[in-house]
Amino acid sequence: MDPFMQAAIDEAKQGLAEGGIPIGSVIVHRGQIIGRGHNRRVQQGSAVLHGEMDALENAGRQPASVYAESVLYTTLSPCAMCSGAILLYGIPKVIIGENQTFLGEELLLRGRGVDVQVVQDASCVEMMRSFIANSPELWNEDIGET
Amino acid sequence: MDPFMQAAIDEAKQGLAEGGIPIGSVIVHRGQIIGRGHNRRVQQGSAVLHGEMDALENAGRQPASVYAESVLYTTLSPCAMCSGAILLYGIPKVIIGENQTFLGEELLLRGRGVDVQVVQDASCVEMMRSFIANSPELWNEDIGET
Repeated sequence: MDPFMQAAIDEAKQGLAEGGIPIGSVIVHRGQIIGRGHNRRVQQGSAVLHGEMDALENAGRQPASVYAESVLYTTLSPCAMCSGAILLYGIPKVIIGENQTFLGEELLLRGRGVDVQVVQDASCVEMMRSFIANSPELWNEDIGET
Repeated sequence: MDPFMQAAIDEAKQGLAEGGIPIGSVIVHRGQIIGRGHNRRVQQGSAVLHGEMDALENAGRQPASVYAESVLYTTLSPCAMCSGAILLYGIPKVIIGENQTFLGEELLLRGRGVDVQVVQDASCVEMMRSFIANSPELWNEDIGET
């Protein structure tokens, strides 16, 4: 396992242990993690801190030159909000744990020139499958579905 | 002036008074403001709390049915991140103060069926023009530019 994807999975597991939605993310700049995070909907009552957003927030204010050399790892295909954040900051590469339980805006990202790679990791799929089966209403809230 | 756009402008002015980036937003559900906010980059060291995101965060966790009946007001054309959040939550209508100093992802929003209206308010234009002239580096950081 890529150690950065493992770090994103560890974030997701920490979120689950906190009673939250198990999606994690890390942002890597020149081989170093500069921000890590996980979904905070339950823990902070947050509507904007998806895993990727939390990692961006925890990376703090950065100049465009840092984002331009960064890779974002996320356990799940990024939704429209998180994909938009990737585009805003010009992050050129995104490594995704899986897109079987939720397919985000990968086409939009690729269409704007982002290098999008999907690992399709079985443990990421199982983590989300189990969570969605147990908490369908919470999951729907997180992705803006009825 | 539409009172909801005025409320968004008031948020932007509050942000400016705090030493921040003067962009404000409110979310209106059935004629009531359910969330209001302004850019928090300077005040909170935030990379994700643009005005629209701050308004979404302050509206708190909401079901899709609430977003589906909401209108988002923002003083400035929404960037990719904020537009993505609008798409994630299925907000059907966005009223924009101006898009002369920054043109966000209005085409993407319209292409996905969002009703986008631009007021082109002179006071919104002047507020951003003055801010960008005074703080070009801060502004570039906020929109991911070098």
